[in-house]
Amino acid sequence: MSRVTDRPLDRLNGEVPVVSASEAATLVPDTATVAVSGFGRVGYPKAVPLALAESGRDLSLTVLSGGSVGEEIDTELLGADAIARRFPYQATPEARAAANSDAIAYQDRQIEAFGDEVQQGQYGAVDVAVVEAVAIGEDWLVPSTSLGHTPACIAAAERLVVEVNEVQPVALRALHDVYVTGSAPTRQPVPLTAPGDRIGGPRIEFDPAKLAAVVVTEQPDSPYSFREPTAEDEAIAANLATFLSAELEQNEVFAEAVRLQFGVGSLGNALMGEIGRIEFGDRDVAYYGEVVQDGLLDLVDDGSLSAVSATSLALSEQGQQRLFEDIERYAERIVLRPADVTNGAELVRRLGVVAVNSALEVDLYGHVNSTHIDGTHVVNGIGGSADFFRNGTLAIVALASTARDGTLNRIVPRVGHVDHTEHDIDVVITEQGVADLRGSVPRERAASLVEQCAHPSFRPTLDAYLDRANAAGGHEPHGADG
Amino acid sequence: MSRVTDRPLDRLNGEVPVVSASEAATLVPDTATVAVSGFGRVGYPKAVPLALAESGRDLSLTVLSGGSVGEEIDTELLGADAIARRFPYQATPEARAAANSDAIAYQDRQIEAFGDEVQQGQYGAVDVAVVEAVAIGEDWLVPSTSLGHTPACIAAAERLVVEVNEVQPVALRALHDVYVTGSAPTRQPVPLTAPGDRIGGPRIEFDPAKLAAVVVTEQPDSPYSFREPTAEDEAIAANLATFLSAELEQNEVFAEAVRLQFGVGSLGNALMGEIGRIEFGDRDVAYYGEVVQDGLLDLVDDGSLSAVSATSLALSEQGQQRLFEDIERYAERIVLRPADVTNGAELVRRLGVVAVNSALEVDLYGHVNSTHIDGTHVVNGIGGSADFFRNGTLAIVALASTARDGTLNRIVPRVGHVDHTEHDIDVVITEQGVADLRGSVPRERAASLVEQCAHPSFRPTLDAYLDRANAAGGHEPHGADG
Repeated sequence: MSRVTDRPLDRLNGEVPVVSASEAATLVPDTATVAVSGFGRVGYPKAVPLALAESGRDLSLTVLSGGSVGEEIDTELLGADAIARRFPYQATPEARAAANSDAIAYQDRQIEAFGDEVQQGQYGAVDVAVVEAVAIGEDWLVPSTSLGHTPACIAAAERLVVEVNEVQPVALRALHDVYVTGSAPTRQPVPLTAPGDRIGGPRIEFDPAKLAAVVVTEQPDSPYSFREPTAEDEAIAANLATFLSAELEQNEVFAEAVRLQFGVGSLGNALMGEIGRIEFGDRDVAYYGEVVQDGLLDLVDDGSLSAVSATSLALSEQGQQRLFEDIERYAERIVLRPADVTNGAELVRRLGVVAVNSALEVDLYGHVNSTHIDGTHVVNGIGGSADFFRNGTLAIVALASTARDGTLNRIVPRVGHVDHTEHDIDVVITEQGVADLRGSVPRERAASLVEQCAHPSFRPTLDAYLDRANAAGGHEPHGADG
Repeated sequence: MSRVTDRPLDRLNGEVPVVSASEAATLVPDTATVAVSGFGRVGYPKAVPLALAESGRDLSLTVLSGGSVGEEIDTELLGADAIARRFPYQATPEARAAANSDAIAYQDRQIEAFGDEVQQGQYGAVDVAVVEAVAIGEDWLVPSTSLGHTPACIAAAERLVVEVNEVQPVALRALHDVYVTGSAPTRQPVPLTAPGDRIGGPRIEFDPAKLAAVVVTEQPDSPYSFREPTAEDEAIAANLATFLSAELEQNEVFAEAVRLQFGVGSLGNALMGEIGRIEFGDRDVAYYGEVVQDGLLDLVDDGSLSAVSATSLALSEQGQQRLFEDIERYAERIVLRPADVTNGAELVRRLGVVAVNSALEVDLYGHVNSTHIDGTHVVNGIGGSADFFRNGTLAIVALASTARDGTLNRIVPRVGHVDHTEHDIDVVITEQGVADLRGSVPRERAASLVEQCAHPSFRPTLDAYLDRANAAGGHEPHGADG
């Protein structure tokens, strides 16, 4: 067999067929559990899912991924009625609609533990792992633009199909730090004590007997497009900067160093872009989160961040180009890790991460809904937000106080669905102000959230609710209509 | 100054006054933040709180503890109107009533992180730590029957008052393993990889300049009294044993070893007592939880458990006597650790703990209420349940399907308060059966919980609710009345 591709790292042993995507697709049984690479909508396999979608077969697949994947899977394959079950996260309008109409069986899951769950067989035996790589050898591959739970998916799978994507630069290898956390009860401490530490290498290793096919592809990731920051985004960012600048002076944990995490999305990207407003002084500032968004590249370039740790490159087209043209230099500061390390309770707690994530709504006692509109209709999923909120030193919910042109209140008596409890949330920030809930008790929290965070147009309603609630009594009072 | 007591470990430097409890109480300012030792209602200071209660002073204290404490604090001191604010857990009828009537400002908190919160000043500067010990030197003490967050409380406090309790055996030192986890961002991995590992020593060390007074006391801990297991408890235990026996065979994580945690209380004690029903084969079985209850002593004695790791000795009078008479032998198997180690995310995840905790109610999608009756009136607090549910390999909620003689349903459409989300709960067990929620999606969960766990008398109502909910649609359907 000839070389798979013209990539310098290729070292296949001649036993593995390089095949077309449609040939590889035949290796996926009709009712298979398929684990795919991908996180933050990048680094996922594209050709084999598309070939499956176009196969005309009557498929009923369970599809597992590290995080969100792109349209070839959650639009095309889903649109071909090929997906019956889907875990742990989706982020396309089509997958969202299918989850809400019960057309697919979907459950969002915490990111950190999902690799463990897959390896323990919670979603059934994994028949095939289909993963994207930039290089492959007989018992190893180098992932492309995300790491996510790819190592766990490969470890759990009976067979492995690899898409070697020739438009993803081989130099991406410089970013990857693959560390295998192993399994309880013999798992060892993860030897990472600083955000930029490298504790593994660029390759995911696998049992060569698993490798069933290699497909060469040329389809780029769909780039992100972020909306321009709104005036509301700017006001939230300003409140965050004011709060954090004061907090850094007061809290000894931040005397020398600050480790930040921001949620994915336009608000997250806008907040990252405004990190410059925070008065860090001469503290060492690093990012320890899930995804690299465009805002972070500027901060790496201007020296604001000493290190960036993530599991995925969720960049705009421009950001992607900028990174790809200068990977070796960025690799001095940026490292990609498996999602059980980026989101690991052990690491998030050890490093003292300041976690900033958005939400749909927050209730008067600090319970947070990140996932379900009206408490019933899922948007994307919980993702890694709880991993960071639960174990971070400072859990900050950042959101606009209203939605739908000010007609929908987002500081509510009760949230329709709870993803994060009052016990894990420290601070709520809206464009109106900052409610610091630490050290406070339910009645104080409610007063602070109404006064500091709710939109003035909704405060009278909330005050009236609290009057009724407090009259009814209890430790965490509620009105009959709450 | 003469020796403090006739205890062989005493080694005070003569600078520290040994005083009466009422003299020591004068060291506590009227509006002080006081951090006390104690967890699981044992090992807390008794004489100084009682002296404060009887002082006739107009006190307005903030009282912090590791976990629950006994009546001298949460009944007597509270009854003297001396407590204004209380964190992170209470377990007396009087404190419960005061929290619900807003007579005290109370907030329950996750146990693991509470020591960090205290040290970061979230409850204000700690003026005085009042802790119980069995021995003291000029810059160290040996705690008595619990460790809890005592090291963090002492580290955070400006002054230290120590009650050396002469009825607590000095030999308790053999049980303690004090390890200081340090503070983010320079915290190091906790070097514990097996439940029985010893990574510290028996002493809590402190800055000798803090030591303001020593009081010699003789008041024992109030022993626990557990109710006899009911037929319902027995049925829950039998279902748990059947489920776990099968799970151990199927799940590779449990191929060699099992690490168990059980919540505190009569059901927890009953379940511990029935561990013998589980078919462990030749697996290594250890306990990695918060408290040692009577049920565990039997299992240590009969060799069922190779190690018991906890932070408190929550024993009945008989159990206490049994342990105290044979501490050295029990210390070969039993180790007491600070609560940030027993409950630490890093450790619970690393060891693959099977967490079994009770709850007030569970909703149809697996959200759990552990704390608030009717969603408003607190019982005790979240305690460590979330620490173990969130990071354990298997999170099992065990509860009776009904309360109040069968008139109150505990598998409900919506819980009134969410302490644990659907994402952290794996299995629900009632006397009716077992709902294994792993790998399932919301509609499947609801069906399984109604069919397997709900009491037959409530199933028709729940089925009718689900019909209405499913007709209304969405990913996690609810009826208008839910």
